[in-house]
Amino acid sequence: MKTYLDCIPCFFKQALQAARIAGVDESTQLLILNETARVLPEFPLESTPPEMARIIYKLVTRITGVDDPYRIIKERSNRLALGIYNRLIDIMTNSRDRILTALELAAAGNIIDFGVKNIPDINEELEKILADKTKSITNGGSAFFEYEKFKSALSRANTILYLADNAGEIVFDRILIEEIQKNYPDKKLIFAVKEKPAINDALLKDALDCGIGEIAEIISSGSDAPGTLLPYCSQSFLKIFKSADLIISKGQGNYESLSGSEQPIFYLLIAKCEVIADHIGCQTGDVVLLSD
Amino acid sequence: MKTYLDCIPCFFKQALQAARIAGVDESTQLLILNETARVLPEFPLESTPPEMARIIYKLVTRITGVDDPYRIIKERSNRLALGIYNRLIDIMTNSRDRILTALELAAAGNIIDFGVKNIPDINEELEKILADKTKSITNGGSAFFEYEKFKSALSRANTILYLADNAGEIVFDRILIEEIQKNYPDKKLIFAVKEKPAINDALLKDALDCGIGEIAEIISSGSDAPGTLLPYCSQSFLKIFKSADLIISKGQGNYESLSGSEQPIFYLLIAKCEVIADHIGCQTGDVVLLSD
Repeated sequence: MKTYLDCIPCFFKQALQAARIAGVDESTQLLILNETARVLPEFPLESTPPEMARIIYKLVTRITGVDDPYRIIKERSNRLALGIYNRLIDIMTNSRDRILTALELAAAGNIIDFGVKNIPDINEELEKILADKTKSITNGGSAFFEYEKFKSALSRANTILYLADNAGEIVFDRILIEEIQKNYPDKKLIFAVKEKPAINDALLKDALDCGIGEIAEIISSGSDAPGTLLPYCSQSFLKIFKSADLIISKGQGNYESLSGSEQPIFYLLIAKCEVIADHIGCQTGDVVLLSD
Repeated sequence: MKTYLDCIPCFFKQALQAARIAGVDESTQLLILNETARVLPEFPLESTPPEMARIIYKLVTRITGVDDPYRIIKERSNRLALGIYNRLIDIMTNSRDRILTALELAAAGNIIDFGVKNIPDINEELEKILADKTKSITNGGSAFFEYEKFKSALSRANTILYLADNAGEIVFDRILIEEIQKNYPDKKLIFAVKEKPAINDALLKDALDCGIGEIAEIISSGSDAPGTLLPYCSQSFLKIFKSADLIISKGQGNYESLSGSEQPIFYLLIAKCEVIADHIGCQTGDVVLLSD
């Protein structure tokens, strides 16, 4: 997906938020905004938003000297999400369509995104997600939720690549992965995280902390982009990416970087901003499960 | 009020909105965003937000060649607001505290602000304002609504300077001015608009179209700033500004540029963004009537 003009004010918002989370003073925050302004005119709109986000988060790291500004937030997200793991399991137990419920929970976990949203209300957000789960958030299917098509692709696939998004969210992903493993114990499931810090995206340590290591093979994309920017990915990742029978791509960053791909990808996300919603054709807040 | 770092993403939003309203193509819109990025590092944060807004709207005019991008929107706002003038009068007729209701209506008119909000829902906005008027939006007073202090200042003042904000909104201002005139027929009331286009701020023609000419003397600030930036105002305006016994300052732009002034100013506005709300100490959406 190309970068839209409406992404530009948002880049400045993200730069400011990252600068603040890195804990630097106001004059350094301003320096980061000015540096963002300096690189902006050099950035081609044909590139995807995560490419600009990658540039911004790299300059935040360079100027602040903080390698992983979101580390504490990621750890908190993991802890909070793990704290409700048993409640998620209860929801699964009461489900009449377990794969659907697992998809919905995995999508709901995508609400926890500190690149787009503010930080303080994780608990409240989680409560809201769980409250929402009293009814099916997708109402069993919509034009933007290709459930039957996904189930069919899932049943046929041998190797499944799961592209993770944020820390915390991966506990919700774990529910979906466990459900897939339960239904299809012979399928090979590979869980891909980022190689280096990229906003609050999950790294290897997050995946291990959230128990993914016990249910799937964990690899890294080889890159520090908040999304899956293929030119920055490692050869070993690309080999798996190109040969997987089914790719489950979580979140906006992965959608923005991969949408239009020729691989067999299903994008599972909540459309969190108007740009994405307009691009898909859905409403902001919609739960989306789409293939290209 | 100084410019906060959170104003910076908003400057880009405003630049993009103005570029789109001026009707230029996407590459020109991008040029305007890049030019905004170019001037940003030169802008001192000690300056007020309307000073940066003035720079941005001037560059929009320079690049697009459109002198008054918001002209059609302003005319539409005036027309729509005049269309409900009689309903506003009905609300006044049913009021038990007419000055309070007139203040509330004048504040409610401040919702119509295309510098901050999107355009298409004027009618809906107006309906919402009128619906809100079934109850007092200020509940008769709060820490941010200095009603008694205002009434006392009003009764003592001989010359009142009314600093207008947006087109359309000035119909709501007219209600307040008419009420003041009715209670105090001997007071001199001067209504100040902008000299040249500044977002959707009211100009002389707007004031005349909305019937202000029949109830008050109309002057201009002498400037094209979306606010009241004294260094850009005319000598004749400054003379009145400095000698008025009471100044009623409408909207965020005037508050941002004058807050902290030594003149006897009451700011009447709705706090539309978090920056303003935090600066005042109130909540976003609060109706505010404050003196320095």
